[in-house]
Amino acid sequence: MNDQSKLWGGRFSQPTHILMEQFSQSVSFDHRLYKQDIAGSIAHARMLSRNGVISETEFNDIECGLNEILAEIERGDFQWSESMEDVHMNIEFALTQKIGEAGKKLHTGRSRNDQVATDVRLYLREELDVVGALLTLVQKALVELAAQHTDTIMPGFTHMQSAQPVTFGHHVLAWNEMFQRDYERLQDCRKRVNISPLGCAALAGTSYPVDREMTAKELEFDTVALNSLDAVSDRDFVIEFNAAGALVMMHLSRIAEELVLWSSPAFDFVDLGDQFCTGSSIMPQKKNPDVAEITRGKSGRVTGNLMSLLMIMKGQPLTYNRDNQEDKEPLFDTIDTMQLTLQIFAAMVPTIGVKTDNMLSAAAAGYSTATDLADYLVRKQIPFRDAHEIVGNVVAYAVEKRIDLPAVGLDQLKIFSAAIEEDVFRVLELQGSVESRNHIGGTAPDRVREAVDNARKLLDAREVYPV
Amino acid sequence: MNDQSKLWGGRFSQPTHILMEQFSQSVSFDHRLYKQDIAGSIAHARMLSRNGVISETEFNDIECGLNEILAEIERGDFQWSESMEDVHMNIEFALTQKIGEAGKKLHTGRSRNDQVATDVRLYLREELDVVGALLTLVQKALVELAAQHTDTIMPGFTHMQSAQPVTFGHHVLAWNEMFQRDYERLQDCRKRVNISPLGCAALAGTSYPVDREMTAKELEFDTVALNSLDAVSDRDFVIEFNAAGALVMMHLSRIAEELVLWSSPAFDFVDLGDQFCTGSSIMPQKKNPDVAEITRGKSGRVTGNLMSLLMIMKGQPLTYNRDNQEDKEPLFDTIDTMQLTLQIFAAMVPTIGVKTDNMLSAAAAGYSTATDLADYLVRKQIPFRDAHEIVGNVVAYAVEKRIDLPAVGLDQLKIFSAAIEEDVFRVLELQGSVESRNHIGGTAPDRVREAVDNARKLLDAREVYPV
Amino acid sequence: MNDQSKLWGGRFSQPTHILMEQFSQSVSFDHRLYKQDIAGSIAHARMLSRNGVISETEFNDIECGLNEILAEIERGDFQWSESMEDVHMNIEFALTQKIGEAGKKLHTGRSRNDQVATDVRLYLREELDVVGALLTLVQKALVELAAQHTDTIMPGFTHMQSAQPVTFGHHVLAWNEMFQRDYERLQDCRKRVNISPLGCAALAGTSYPVDREMTAKELEFDTVALNSLDAVSDRDFVIEFNAAGALVMMHLSRIAEELVLWSSPAFDFVDLGDQFCTGSSIMPQKKNPDVAEITRGKSGRVTGNLMSLLMIMKGQPLTYNRDNQEDKEPLFDTIDTMQLTLQIFAAMVPTIGVKTDNMLSAAAAGYSTATDLADYLVRKQIPFRDAHEIVGNVVAYAVEKRIDLPAVGLDQLKIFSAAIEEDVFRVLELQGSVESRNHIGGTAPDRVREAVDNARKLLDAREVYPV
Amino acid sequence: MNDQSKLWGGRFSQPTHILMEQFSQSVSFDHRLYKQDIAGSIAHARMLSRNGVISETEFNDIECGLNEILAEIERGDFQWSESMEDVHMNIEFALTQKIGEAGKKLHTGRSRNDQVATDVRLYLREELDVVGALLTLVQKALVELAAQHTDTIMPGFTHMQSAQPVTFGHHVLAWNEMFQRDYERLQDCRKRVNISPLGCAALAGTSYPVDREMTAKELEFDTVALNSLDAVSDRDFVIEFNAAGALVMMHLSRIAEELVLWSSPAFDFVDLGDQFCTGSSIMPQKKNPDVAEITRGKSGRVTGNLMSLLMIMKGQPLTYNRDNQEDKEPLFDTIDTMQLTLQIFAAMVPTIGVKTDNMLSAAAAGYSTATDLADYLVRKQIPFRDAHEIVGNVVAYAVEKRIDLPAVGLDQLKIFSAAIEEDVFRVLELQGSVESRNHIGGTAPDRVREAVDNARKLLDAREVYPV
Repeated sequence: MNDQSKLWGGRFSQPTHILMEQFSQSVSFDHRLYKQDIAGSIAHARMLSRNGVISETEFNDIECGLNEILAEIERGDFQWSESMEDVHMNIEFALTQKIGEAGKKLHTGRSRNDQVATDVRLYLREELDVVGALLTLVQKALVELAAQHTDTIMPGFTHMQSAQPVTFGHHVLAWNEMFQRDYERLQDCRKRVNISPLGCAALAGTSYPVDREMTAKELEFDTVALNSLDAVSDRDFVIEFNAAGALVMMHLSRIAEELVLWSSPAFDFVDLGDQFCTGSSIMPQKKNPDVAEITRGKSGRVTGNLMSLLMIMKGQPLTYNRDNQEDKEPLFDTIDTMQLTLQIFAAMVPTIGVKTDNMLSAAAAGYSTATDLADYLVRKQIPFRDAHEIVGNVVAYAVEKRIDLPAVGLDQLKIFSAAIEEDVFRVLELQGSVESRNHIGGTAPDRVREAVDNARKLLDAREVYPV
Repeated sequence: MNDQSKLWGGRFSQPTHILMEQFSQSVSFDHRLYKQDIAGSIAHARMLSRNGVISETEFNDIECGLNEILAEIERGDFQWSESMEDVHMNIEFALTQKIGEAGKKLHTGRSRNDQVATDVRLYLREELDVVGALLTLVQKALVELAAQHTDTIMPGFTHMQSAQPVTFGHHVLAWNEMFQRDYERLQDCRKRVNISPLGCAALAGTSYPVDREMTAKELEFDTVALNSLDAVSDRDFVIEFNAAGALVMMHLSRIAEELVLWSSPAFDFVDLGDQFCTGSSIMPQKKNPDVAEITRGKSGRVTGNLMSLLMIMKGQPLTYNRDNQEDKEPLFDTIDTMQLTLQIFAAMVPTIGVKTDNMLSAAAAGYSTATDLADYLVRKQIPFRDAHEIVGNVVAYAVEKRIDLPAVGLDQLKIFSAAIEEDVFRVLELQGSVESRNHIGGTAPDRVREAVDNARKLLDAREVYPV
Repeated sequence: MNDQSKLWGGRFSQPTHILMEQFSQSVSFDHRLYKQDIAGSIAHARMLSRNGVISETEFNDIECGLNEILAEIERGDFQWSESMEDVHMNIEFALTQKIGEAGKKLHTGRSRNDQVATDVRLYLREELDVVGALLTLVQKALVELAAQHTDTIMPGFTHMQSAQPVTFGHHVLAWNEMFQRDYERLQDCRKRVNISPLGCAALAGTSYPVDREMTAKELEFDTVALNSLDAVSDRDFVIEFNAAGALVMMHLSRIAEELVLWSSPAFDFVDLGDQFCTGSSIMPQKKNPDVAEITRGKSGRVTGNLMSLLMIMKGQPLTYNRDNQEDKEPLFDTIDTMQLTLQIFAAMVPTIGVKTDNMLSAAAAGYSTATDLADYLVRKQIPFRDAHEIVGNVVAYAVEKRIDLPAVGLDQLKIFSAAIEEDVFRVLELQGSVESRNHIGGTAPDRVREAVDNARKLLDAREVYPV
Repeated sequence: MNDQSKLWGGRFSQPTHILMEQFSQSVSFDHRLYKQDIAGSIAHARMLSRNGVISETEFNDIECGLNEILAEIERGDFQWSESMEDVHMNIEFALTQKIGEAGKKLHTGRSRNDQVATDVRLYLREELDVVGALLTLVQKALVELAAQHTDTIMPGFTHMQSAQPVTFGHHVLAWNEMFQRDYERLQDCRKRVNISPLGCAALAGTSYPVDREMTAKELEFDTVALNSLDAVSDRDFVIEFNAAGALVMMHLSRIAEELVLWSSPAFDFVDLGDQFCTGSSIMPQKKNPDVAEITRGKSGRVTGNLMSLLMIMKGQPLTYNRDNQEDKEPLFDTIDTMQLTLQIFAAMVPTIGVKTDNMLSAAAAGYSTATDLADYLVRKQIPFRDAHEIVGNVVAYAVEKRIDLPAVGLDQLKIFSAAIEEDVFRVLELQGSVESRNHIGGTAPDRVREAVDNARKLLDAREVYPV
């Protein structure tokens, strides 16, 4: 195809510079919108024919032609051309080649500005639903892992140090809570994605008799955009989705960090399936938690995309500017990164082997029931802050002697506080400690079982996109 | 106060390094949480006394003492001390000084980890509501400005070039749509802010008989956090709010850009009130749109805060780590920046003077009805893409002759296309063009009036926080 | 190839998960390092043979084999395999297929950790030199444009408003200064790129007798990395380069903004060649400054990459972690984006048509010699701040009367200040104003000519990579 | 002071809005530039008097008055006023109050645009030198720590897993290398900071006879900015410094991560001085590595500032726009954060207690000499990749038997490879392993001692700013 055929070439006396084509084309990345582009075009054409702007025959030709193109693309037989700039021009040109005059009428009453906004919204709606389904898979895997470990005791950490004993099931459910929020946040975001800009044309609407509700309904949009200038220049939905994605990836990076730590010899709490690890070319004994490490890295990537998007939109006057074309690659990269990472987590979580003995002995070693001792003293009527000081002295003593709290012995304990009696040993035990935190959100095994049940119900009730 | 009195000092043999106090203190910025800290403490103490952990007298002493401290702080009589680290320690220490032993019991069954999470959530909930109220003020000012200009014709721009005539009211309503989304996004965010972590203690919950629903209800939280480990380590709500804030500021930066352009001599579309402009020390004729420029700059600031927050949380193992302390300054800065900028926009928008003549002549000059000519040809049965090419030739001719489209004349127009007839001149006029885009979201004055009415209803129905 | 043949597979009992291969592979993007990987391997093998670790025959086989592979890759005949993970494994496996046992010895005394660091440094060094050459091309184009316009008067802007008359040549040289700094910054960065990590092996160095200076010299590194642990975990050079790239793109975005403004009808100062613009599918009269708009957008992209990289490295313990693999795509994207954008600017700058008349009349219209009037008064012994106030009154009067400063007339001027005399009209003229700013860095045409000469000398003296 | 007295108020008929003053003022943060502002004013005034623009008496009055103001500010007696906007106006107004007419002449031939650029460059130059001095202090502390541990064996980590034994001194020197690069990068940055914009006035230079070299020399600038338009709009030096700062903080975050890990019970490699740790209000046994955690958090902050700055400058047309005012708070915050963090590291590093026994046993436990075994086999003529596989089998065997490599025993080893002989045990020992990596950059104690010596020389030769 030569430049003469550029659809906007009428006014131009000089051909496009060779670099320009490479620089300004988007088809190399936006061709993935082909399905949405075709669906949008068919809806638009049907509406045009319903409203008498084109004839029914013309519509039938357009629909047929577009469906043929769809099949060609999906078979891999379609020739994408960079000189045709973008997915829209490529398809429209092919349509006109195929069906002649009627093809030239398809673009009546719309513009690439509302067309691309429609395509991206349709595309993102579907991918967002896929993300939702993948989040659900990961959550289900986590809840089942938690269900197996409602009574498994491990150290709970603050400042990377053993603080109080908790159950592993409780810890895994903390991860589930993160994704629960992510899921809800994405559902909220979806409301602002699923709005139809179609019919807003270049910026001001169109003088053709368009029926925007009709196309919106056919394309399963919830509603139509209420202002044409805003509709063609708005990329909030891309940014909001990416911000939600940055949170998903941040959560994955936190879990990843824990898996890296826990699978290291220093902790040795879990064993990740061989299928998700790699070795080293020079150190054959290593089993590297690659999925976790790469996930940590990928969290930077998605945050970088978010920054790109905000910076692209910053200070742009209305309405459409070509800067906006740069929204697609960060968005697509975020979608791909999130989906692949969630997919691999869904597969990996069930392979996590839990070394319950190591968890238990780590919990036992870290004076992790010191708080329980303080609480015990408070129940003996010692003010909290005083109890705190007494326990501090007990721990300092135990650290110095390199012994555990129960090993301090009643006589010595009584020197620190006369209020301490025989019954103290029950609170110094891990099992007792864990069971005592028995309120909503607490780590007691009964509460964790309850939380597992509630989470299962919530997840089962969720209607998810089939993946 | 010496180090011996540090509330966690029991185990330590060496005093805190002088730099350490400066480095790790947060009271210089978190003292602004005092109101929420006190409210949270009173709710917690009331619950403790209800559940028999402390006596009613003790609760009364605590409540009284805290209310006295509140009054002192608000009078400016309270001495904040950096060696006391944070707002929580400062207040608790003062309480114990004031009421003795009972003060030491206040911290029973909680930790600074759930305390700070509670305080920040309460604080952010209120500030978010203030932002909502300010958004409403800005939106109302915009809708009233639009109401005055439903028929004012201006050029609509794409690629910073005149594209099609639109009405100024329509353009201003595009701004309103941005803030409408912001408002709804913040309401969605609020659901995830307004959740009570109180009672989750350090990380695992507590062995005291706490009633988390009771404190949540007293503090007007919607619900309680369901997992203690998550509750003390979650900062999603801070990030989600900041992401919403980055969008608000991005929108303001886009409007700001337009105000800078439009108040420049090159456009001369609007006049910003003297009250919101400054002059130059060396060029006395200048009237600088400072508010708009600074606003553009401030959009960078809030996006920077978002970056900070995501990076702070990245790769953090559960549960609480001191890194989290760094969440406050970006959050507070985002709140302050948003609120001040929205406030000044609410005051500035009504001072925008609109130069309708300049807008009109700019619209007339830019071949902005070329699309209408193309649409005209299509209605004469010329396929869209062919019509496009004809119009391209007409425009090229007019540009070369340096004349406007109507000035091309019927004879010459007929050379470009025999389908053109006398009735073409109606579509080449601005008024006709604007009126013809008469569908939902279109720029026709009737539609803009309708949109103004709808927006007014929506805004009037909104329940907003009093500011 | 099955999993058994994974080079690190010895210890593993389960095959890699199908998703894992996709998730952890890097060959789809790091294959572009093939040339550097092969050069590094040949240098390493030659050193091994020189030091007796492998035989000369083995080295010859390796060199031959690698050169054959190089040729295959460049002919497009090489089969890259994702199951082989990365460029290094792909090439090494192919080598062993080709030459047998000797191939298995190539990896002696090195690791993928120092290998990939070496490859990326070699690759970046070359691409950085290409960027330097492209910057030089852009600078030369700018300096020649400036040379043509040393006397072309235009308004100088502050706050987007006409402030004082300047010459267009002076303005274009301001752009040149930005790139001059970029060039120097990249040269400084190059010193920290061009350091050899080869021989640092996995992290600790190697027990083989390696000669790191020898390989460094063969690969034209300036020096060797001084600490093996640092050498394999350092990605500063990637980040520093990307930060320099973010500045280059920010500069391009500022120029782009000016080109968008100046080519808009509101300014109409320049005409960008048709070759670098596109049209609109619905508005045939538009000539969109796409290159400039896309460039603005791309500045967000490169800053996003910088953010990704900083976040990836944040909080990583030494030494190599797999997170680092995520450094490549942002780096490659930054390189590609910068190079393509600079290339297109180098081609576009000479096509910029300057509308000198429009520039001149804009300068005449904006009271841009007000400062000169103030300076005139100061020379008449009126204190600067008083002079400022007088001129402010004169301008307010002229604005009200809608006349230019010279049109105010001597009688009226004398009412504002008795010190004003007949000679005032010389300073109110644009030409006189511009000529009077005659010091280093000033806008006087003589100074601009001098600056053009200096810039030409600097650029001619620059040794640049052939592109 | 009322609005009439605003230095640019001449043309304005309406007073500044109350919010506007708060919104646009910068004195609340830019007052810290007072010293530089006064130094710049004195240099400028001296030059004006030398060139006959003001009299010597006037200069003397100005110099005296400014020095008095300087003293007042440093005594805390100066009243800063927000209605005076910025540091420049505050000082100039006070000067005129003090010395009358001569004060009004100070601003002759300059503008706030070149004035603020001069002030910030002078300020940053000094703070950059302070950062350089603090980096030197940290580096010296690290080198001395390394000097004490040239022979201390610890596990070297990749993927958070023990990989090969290294010396602790070698690891600490890896940290030193990071800061060495930071120091050099900042020195390169300094060249681009230390350039004088003074005399460029508002944007175009000035018609007064200014001697820019003279003021540059008095203020110890290396050179003068070569283009006035660029000089007043350039903020590259702020961004380049902040990018260097983001790297410094990223390095500190990596070290911080290691200190957090190593001081945790899971590793127990180091003990941080009590002076730099805090306790917990509910868990008295904890000793939290607060400095390290907060440092990790603060790395996000400085990267956020970098993001803000790049976004502020993105797409700004030349020359000065008020957006630029927003550069100061991120810059100041970055300076403060870096300096405080480096200061506290300089103090904390010497308090790091090293638990050499724990390091040694961790190194012994992790099969960390597996690579040495592979190397041994290669020396016995087994191709590297085959050796790798053999060692993999040996390790898998040892892991299964839960024994260390030496414990596998010669008979069993011979089953894996007949090439293994009695001398194998020397290479399986940690000491032998470490000593064998004896080349530049390797971990052998002799090499580490050499590296310590070289680092000491480099640091001693450094001329640093006194702090």
